[in-house]
Amino acid sequence: MIELVGLDADDTLWHNEPLYTHRRERFRELLTRYEPEGVLDDHLYEVELRNLRHFGYGVKGFVLSMIETAIEITGGRVESHDIGRIIDWGREMLSSPTELLAGVSEAVESLGEQFPLILVTKGDLLDQQSKLARSGLAHHFKGIEIVSEKDAGTYTRLMARYVVEPRRFVMVGNSLRSDILPAIQAGAHAVYVPYEMSWIHERVPAEALADVHYHEVAHMRDLPALLALLDLD
Amino acid sequence: MIELVGLDADDTLWHNEPLYTHRRERFRELLTRYEPEGVLDDHLYEVELRNLRHFGYGVKGFVLSMIETAIEITGGRVESHDIGRIIDWGREMLSSPTELLAGVSEAVESLGEQFPLILVTKGDLLDQQSKLARSGLAHHFKGIEIVSEKDAGTYTRLMARYVVEPRRFVMVGNSLRSDILPAIQAGAHAVYVPYEMSWIHERVPAEALADVHYHEVAHMRDLPALLALLDLD
Repeated sequence: MIELVGLDADDTLWHNEPLYTHRRERFRELLTRYEPEGVLDDHLYEVELRNLRHFGYGVKGFVLSMIETAIEITGGRVESHDIGRIIDWGREMLSSPTELLAGVSEAVESLGEQFPLILVTKGDLLDQQSKLARSGLAHHFKGIEIVSEKDAGTYTRLMARYVVEPRRFVMVGNSLRSDILPAIQAGAHAVYVPYEMSWIHERVPAEALADVHYHEVAHMRDLPALLALLDLD
Repeated sequence: MIELVGLDADDTLWHNEPLYTHRRERFRELLTRYEPEGVLDDHLYEVELRNLRHFGYGVKGFVLSMIETAIEITGGRVESHDIGRIIDWGREMLSSPTELLAGVSEAVESLGEQFPLILVTKGDLLDQQSKLARSGLAHHFKGIEIVSEKDAGTYTRLMARYVVEPRRFVMVGNSLRSDILPAIQAGAHAVYVPYEMSWIHERVPAEALADVHYHEVAHMRDLPALLALLDLD
């Protein structure tokens, strides 16, 4: 019997990674003007990773990391006018429409009739709240949990907060690293819904999944049927 | 009878505004090199205010606003090396020690023995969690509520979440605008604990306080006695 379902937001309910991918491309173009030979794609990722413990996940940290990368890669030659453009991209990302994935609206409505739902997401507080408000899905959720990291401890605390046993909780999301592995580690069920692209940081090596038993559906629209089956166990 | 006490964090439990004030001063010095005539202090505040709906409260938004202000004020002449310094300030702010106000440790311990406590704070998620972890106070709190805005609706939702009637809830903090007025508006009690300095955005005009009945203590150490009295009502 399932008593609570946690849904990830970015790239599970709505498109998110394309916003980042698009700006990574524009960032590369911008830097080509300073370094015509091209620059290593992974420099930005290294700066993002280094900044993660200070700035956390989300658009603002991404913008700050792009600015730092631009300064480093150009040896300080990047013009402030281009830095201003990078900040503009951040504002654009934060105010771009929340675009739901196909079938999500129906799937969440149907799930909400069967189970209490909570949203469990990383990122900037205001940004995630604002995306949820614009998504039109907020009323389906009993709780909104915006967390700074999705590890096993996070899921354990969430289940305690909602007073639900691990075997009565299912986490659903597109990130093996953040939604699936730590939820399983915390004793819960997990359903993987792959997304077309993922940030390198969210990937896990195949061996980490060797003994992990999770479910998988190709689309959110297949989720209500799967959870109805799980609920019979 | 009091059933739940909400405590603000920044400048109520630990020093925060001085971190900002110090960087505002360094920012002014930095810009003096470009604009020896001096610059208007309120330009940065205008940019912060304009960005608030995009970036929210907290260090990262403050850093982005300083960068934008520097670009605007210097007409794009600010060097990227100085922009790098501004980002360094942000990292310094995010990793500086959590310095408790005098008497807070004892006051929170004593309060925690009398009432369930929750922390209610604005700002960046990761930053606030990290400050709380470093404060050594975390174990006194039943719940940590990091919110994107403190308005009456926020307090109403919080009280519903903890299943407590407004007249059984007391909010304590140093901001008339964020801790006192909206809590009173939501029907709760409020205790104002003034701090030596406050960001202009947190100030309210005297007339807004004309008919507002709230309590005031000079120091957190006076709070347990006041709440014990309130609890008898």
